[in-house]
Amino acid sequence: MVYADRVLSLFGRRRRKSAEAPTLNSRDDATLRSERVALAELTPPVERFLGQAAYLQLSLFESASRAAQLGPTVAAKRASAAIAEFPLEKHRALVGLIEDRDLDAVDLMEPFAPAIDRFRTVTTGADWHESLITSYVCAGFLDDFFAALGRGLPKDLPQRIGSILEVEDAERLIIAELRWSIDATPRLSSRLALWGRRLVGDAMLVARSATEQGVDADTETRLEPVFTELIGAHTRRMDKLGLTA
Amino acid sequence: MVYADRVLSLFGRRRRKSAEAPTLNSRDDATLRSERVALAELTPPVERFLGQAAYLQLSLFESASRAAQLGPTVAAKRASAAIAEFPLEKHRALVGLIEDRDLDAVDLMEPFAPAIDRFRTVTTGADWHESLITSYVCAGFLDDFFAALGRGLPKDLPQRIGSILEVEDAERLIIAELRWSIDATPRLSSRLALWGRRLVGDAMLVARSATEQGVDADTETRLEPVFTELIGAHTRRMDKLGLTA
Repeated sequence: MVYADRVLSLFGRRRRKSAEAPTLNSRDDATLRSERVALAELTPPVERFLGQAAYLQLSLFESASRAAQLGPTVAAKRASAAIAEFPLEKHRALVGLIEDRDLDAVDLMEPFAPAIDRFRTVTTGADWHESLITSYVCAGFLDDFFAALGRGLPKDLPQRIGSILEVEDAERLIIAELRWSIDATPRLSSRLALWGRRLVGDAMLVARSATEQGVDADTETRLEPVFTELIGAHTRRMDKLGLTA
Repeated sequence: MVYADRVLSLFGRRRRKSAEAPTLNSRDDATLRSERVALAELTPPVERFLGQAAYLQLSLFESASRAAQLGPTVAAKRASAAIAEFPLEKHRALVGLIEDRDLDAVDLMEPFAPAIDRFRTVTTGADWHESLITSYVCAGFLDDFFAALGRGLPKDLPQRIGSILEVEDAERLIIAELRWSIDATPRLSSRLALWGRRLVGDAMLVARSATEQGVDADTETRLEPVFTELIGAHTRRMDKLGLTA
C-alpha cells in the first residue's frame, strides 16, 4: 500500500506515450497514415461523438466506483477511489466540451444509454479484482479507440479529445494494486486473464458501434488495422500485470 | 435536467455561509464563543482527526457513487456523478494534508474503518432518492461537525480544514434533483422525511465518537449546544427540500 501511495503522489497527470508511434510491427509510416485516414472517415458527427464518449466515461466511472465499494481493505478502497477519479474527470471534461457548444449533455448522452448500460452490466466484475481489471481493460482499450476516432473531428477537437482521454495514470495505479496479488496467486491470475479476454471482446463491440456507419463489411475493413493496433496495446497492458492476453 | 445542468454550470466552488454566524436563536456572541472553546477541547490530535475525516469522506464517496449507480435516468446518473465529486475531492484534499506531514494515509485511516463502514452500511439507501438524501443529510451534518471540531487544531489547519469541508455546491445539486419529485409525490416526501430523521441520528453517533474523550457525561454536556446548532442547520436543509425534519 505504501508503494501505491508513492505512485499516487509522484505522478502528475502525464500524457500517455503518443499512440502515433508505430507499435505493433514494422509497418511504415505511409501505411499507418492511410489507416488513420480510413478511421477518420468513420468518425461520427461532433454531437454524436461527444454524447457517446461522455456517457461511456460516466459508465466507466460507475464501474470504477463499484471497485471502491468492493475494496476489501482500506488501502484497496483508497486506491480504487483514486482510480475512479479518472473517468469522472474525463466525463466532466467531455461534458464541458458539450456545454461550450451550448448543447445539453443529457440530451446528447441519452441515445447511447441503452447500449452502454448493457456493456456496463456484462462487464461488471464479480469482486474487487475483476472490477479493477474492468477499469483497466475497458478504459484502456476504449480511451485509445475514442482518441483515435476523435482525430476525424474538426478544428482543435482532436487535440482536446486526445489530452482528455490519453492519460495513463489510472493504469499505473491499477498495476501497483494488482501486480503483487497476481504474482502471488496463480489461480487468481488465470481467472483474471480469462476475464480480461472477455472484456476486450465487449470493448471491441462498443468501439465498433461508435463508428459512423455501424457494422457493415466496409467498416470492418477500415476498423481491422485499428483494432490490430489496439489489441497490441491491450496485450502490452496485460503483460504489465503479468497476465496472458 | 436542464435546470440541474444550469446550476452545475453556474456555480464555482462557493464557500458555505460561515457557520460562525449565530443561527438558531438569539444566543449572544459570548455564549457562542464559549461553546466553540468547549468543542475545541474535544478536538483529537491532528493524526486522529485527519485519518478519521479522510476515511469518512471516502465512505461518503462510496455512498454518493452508489447513487450514481442507482440513478434511474441519464440525467439522474449524471447529476449523481457530479455530486460524488465533492466527497472524493474532500477525501483527496485531506489525504494531501496527511501526506504533507509525511504520514501514510492508509495507516491513519485504518483504525476508523470498522465504525465508519458500519455507519455506511446502516445509511445505505434503498433506492436512488434515499441514496441522495444520505449524501445530503450525512455529508451536511458531518462536514459542519468536522469543520467545527477542526477549529481546535493547531496552526493554519482550522482554516484549511474549513475551506476543504465547507462547500455547499453538492447540496444545491441535490436540491435541484430532488425538490421537484418531492413536491410532486407526497408519499415519497413522507418516506424521505423519515429516512432523513434516521440518518441524522446515525450522523450524530459518528460525530460523538469522533471527539477526543469518547462518550462520557462531560463530553455530552460540551457537545449538546454544538449538536443543537447542527440540528438547526439540518432542519433548514430539510426545509429546502420541502421535508419535515
